[in-house]
Amino acid sequence: SKVQIPPKNDLSSTIFTIFTFKYFTPLCPPDILRLSWSKSIMWPPGWRSGLRHCIAALAVPPETLGISLSHRASGWVRSVRPQKENLFLHVNDGSSLQSLQVVASSELNHRLLTFGSAVEISGSLVTSPSRKQDVELQADQIDVVGECNPVDFPFKIKEKHGLEYIRQFPHLRCKTNAFSSLLRIRSEATAAIQQYFKEKGFIQVHTPVLTSNDCEGAGELFQVEPAGQEKNQDEEGHQHFFSVPAYLTVSGQLHLEVMAGAFPGVYAFGPTFRAENSQSRRHLAEFYMVEAEISFTQSLEDLMKVMEDLFRSTTEHLLSQCPEDVALYHKHVSPGYRVRHQKYLKRNTMITYTEAINILNSSSKKFAFKTDWGSDLQTEHEKYLVKHCGDVPLFVTDYPYALKPFYTRDNQDQPLHTAAAVDLLVPGVGEMCGGSLREERLDLLKSRLAQAGLDETYGWYLDLRRFGSVPHGGFGMGFERYLQCVLGVDNIKDVIPFPRYSRSCLL
Amino acid sequence: SKVQIPPKNDLSSTIFTIFTFKYFTPLCPPDILRLSWSKSIMWPPGWRSGLRHCIAALAVPPETLGISLSHRASGWVRSVRPQKENLFLHVNDGSSLQSLQVVASSELNHRLLTFGSAVEISGSLVTSPSRKQDVELQADQIDVVGECNPVDFPFKIKEKHGLEYIRQFPHLRCKTNAFSSLLRIRSEATAAIQQYFKEKGFIQVHTPVLTSNDCEGAGELFQVEPAGQEKNQDEEGHQHFFSVPAYLTVSGQLHLEVMAGAFPGVYAFGPTFRAENSQSRRHLAEFYMVEAEISFTQSLEDLMKVMEDLFRSTTEHLLSQCPEDVALYHKHVSPGYRVRHQKYLKRNTMITYTEAINILNSSSKKFAFKTDWGSDLQTEHEKYLVKHCGDVPLFVTDYPYALKPFYTRDNQDQPLHTAAAVDLLVPGVGEMCGGSLREERLDLLKSRLAQAGLDETYGWYLDLRRFGSVPHGGFGMGFERYLQCVLGVDNIKDVIPFPRYSRSCLL
Repeated sequence: SKVQIPPKNDLSSTIFTIFTFKYFTPLCPPDILRLSWSKSIMWPPGWRSGLRHCIAALAVPPETLGISLSHRASGWVRSVRPQKENLFLHVNDGSSLQSLQVVASSELNHRLLTFGSAVEISGSLVTSPSRKQDVELQADQIDVVGECNPVDFPFKIKEKHGLEYIRQFPHLRCKTNAFSSLLRIRSEATAAIQQYFKEKGFIQVHTPVLTSNDCEGAGELFQVEPAGQEKNQDEEGHQHFFSVPAYLTVSGQLHLEVMAGAFPGVYAFGPTFRAENSQSRRHLAEFYMVEAEISFTQSLEDLMKVMEDLFRSTTEHLLSQCPEDVALYHKHVSPGYRVRHQKYLKRNTMITYTEAINILNSSSKKFAFKTDWGSDLQTEHEKYLVKHCGDVPLFVTDYPYALKPFYTRDNQDQPLHTAAAVDLLVPGVGEMCGGSLREERLDLLKSRLAQAGLDETYGWYLDLRRFGSVPHGGFGMGFERYLQCVLGVDNIKDVIPFPRYSRSCLL
Repeated sequence: SKVQIPPKNDLSSTIFTIFTFKYFTPLCPPDILRLSWSKSIMWPPGWRSGLRHCIAALAVPPETLGISLSHRASGWVRSVRPQKENLFLHVNDGSSLQSLQVVASSELNHRLLTFGSAVEISGSLVTSPSRKQDVELQADQIDVVGECNPVDFPFKIKEKHGLEYIRQFPHLRCKTNAFSSLLRIRSEATAAIQQYFKEKGFIQVHTPVLTSNDCEGAGELFQVEPAGQEKNQDEEGHQHFFSVPAYLTVSGQLHLEVMAGAFPGVYAFGPTFRAENSQSRRHLAEFYMVEAEISFTQSLEDLMKVMEDLFRSTTEHLLSQCPEDVALYHKHVSPGYRVRHQKYLKRNTMITYTEAINILNSSSKKFAFKTDWGSDLQTEHEKYLVKHCGDVPLFVTDYPYALKPFYTRDNQDQPLHTAAAVDLLVPGVGEMCGGSLREERLDLLKSRLAQAGLDETYGWYLDLRRFGSVPHGGFGMGFERYLQCVLGVDNIKDVIPFPRYSRSCLL
């Protein structure tokens, strides 16, 4: 063999010269690997190696080194093609969209080798004679560790199941290519978002799911009490578990604002909840939000810059880290769709609310909802505006003061009285982000809360303006809507592992 | 000036030669920075630079380059020392524990410059003549943007407030050094955990908070319905929002097991809930769990290896990335405490449950609870065992079959019938992790569920064993307990931003 036993701490890079490893598992003790390194590389049985490295390009085919690569692969059967002398299998373990081609003598075929069954296979990794893959596994032994009855299994070999069909099987849909890709994409997008904020110096804060704030989403809140107890009512003098009524959070913003009083930037990435009685393809009862709050800023443009950068860097990360998974969506799930991220979010696709109203009013299109200055923008309006502005993401800024919640910063303009809020609308999805500068001036905030009769409830929030208040602002991005936008997925239920919505909470 | 205008894409590294930047903010457009680069570097006003870089060591003092570094700093005043001619301030912006020293002429002093007030300061960054810091800001202008009345502010300058005192002010405690350090540590630990799993090829899954599973934590579950509605009862034929009763998750395990049917490894990191009526210093109603599930493994040692590695790599990351913050805890909050992570989690601090029982029974200590084989280990037992084994983290394996939930893998041994479960006990905290191999064999799982009358409820779970079942296992780690263990913090309420527990849900 021309291969030297590598120095202990350089094992991975040496193996790298043979296989383009992208993927290390926790269960490979380097010592065992070293001991077994000789003329043949035996992956130790305890090493749950993903298949991803096997199917990557061979930089140096082991045959040319005069060594053989014994390998034990585990995964689920994606296809079975018995031929006269040989049996061909495709085995996938979820580490990538690609499967490992396995070649075996026909004698190793078995009636339990069916689509969906789990297998463990020993053999040698060799350069594949076919152009379709770089490597294949010549199997010496095939064990079916978990069978899969093709009659009962809801997914059929070679059949193309639509997203709607596979959605019926929340406990099995990860076994399809489409949803397995989605889960890898979602995981990478999560990592990309966290990396983005970390690099920019933001502190991640775990804002609470349970909260006693009840104001913002009144009417769409979930309330929480221990199971088996009657929901206690204040008026009866009964005791709540938390002494006060507790709700599931609709936004971590107010809690992030607490932290913005001590850090230059903070963010949260977690579940939020709305008890909306909707079966819409854009709404869920439980969904993920990315929320950021930035201290010492006085401009909406600062916020828009962060939204833009977040969108762009996350999307670029996805396109570079899981191109095959994204391509699956663009080719098969939403044919013709391609995220135009280069075109997306160029600067200056930005209009004020007042300009938006002017655009709508000078249009010849008839809208179902009013377009007076002061009316809220409806989905039909948002769609029109996005189209009108070139079918790219569109920032709309400076909404009427009266439309916005108490914490939005007063622009103190007239006669059209606006507040410093901004929404980001994207093609196909509509509103993806919403943000605002927050009212940091104690006197203005106090009088607005007093008018709403909320100054006692939000005493703690007023305190934030009493003790070292700073100009600040923030925004929230719906994570599932982001995924819909990037992948071109029509229904939000298809981009979250376990969708929860009115009348459905499976598993 | 000897400083050349750097190539556009190399700006950061050039600046790096002047300041040891650790910290970039999103709002620095490189173009603006480049334009302002000349004899003087003017940080553009839109750039919310954190203070962290200012207080880092100057590799090349700007004075020796013949340039001046104009800078605009923002933050909160930590100390004010007026002297005859000069005013000294310490300003902190939360990007690190260290504050920036500001020196100004006494004329710039102002009655609103108090502890806790928010300031924006313009001046020149220079090498500090004092050894206490490398850099200081010579201020030209000081603006108080947010005042802070020292009489009303609950934290007093130069006073050392204990964790219990600052806990009373959940909306302000991030303004203290101790809690600001905690939040940085928590954020870094979160990043470290995610990095660990990502590098090992695990897919991150957002397991749902809302679930219709009600079994595992019966009696300690929170139930959820829309606010303002009576909690609907099945028997009355009323409609639940989700058609079925919905609860807050007590663990993402079963949902992770779904995903373990298509990936080599999956993990979740999110909030979990227990409606425990406890005021203990180790329990919360809402707390964070790290949960992992590993496919194609048949050994508890594989799981223990991952637990060990996770603990060690996260702790090493913390000690290298926020040494000052961790030191603050070890010096001031828990004096004498130092995480012995080198000593911690060496291999073979591992005993079986049966050995544990033997140790307890051969001890001369009297225990309040029974130590018969088959009894659960109580806190007093766990403490004794940890001490007995050298006061290091201790794995206890192979618990009685009857004590463990239905999903735990049957060891099929006798006469002492055990299941393949493992707990990790750590000094001071007790149980930090719990894991097990899961019963992957359909027949065994089916009969156990049938005995418990749960086979219908868990039909979907049985399906996972029908369609490509694989041997697998996993574990959960209490994130707050991990932080308690590493920092030596006695009360779990002091390691989470917004603690929720019986009779308390502030903000």
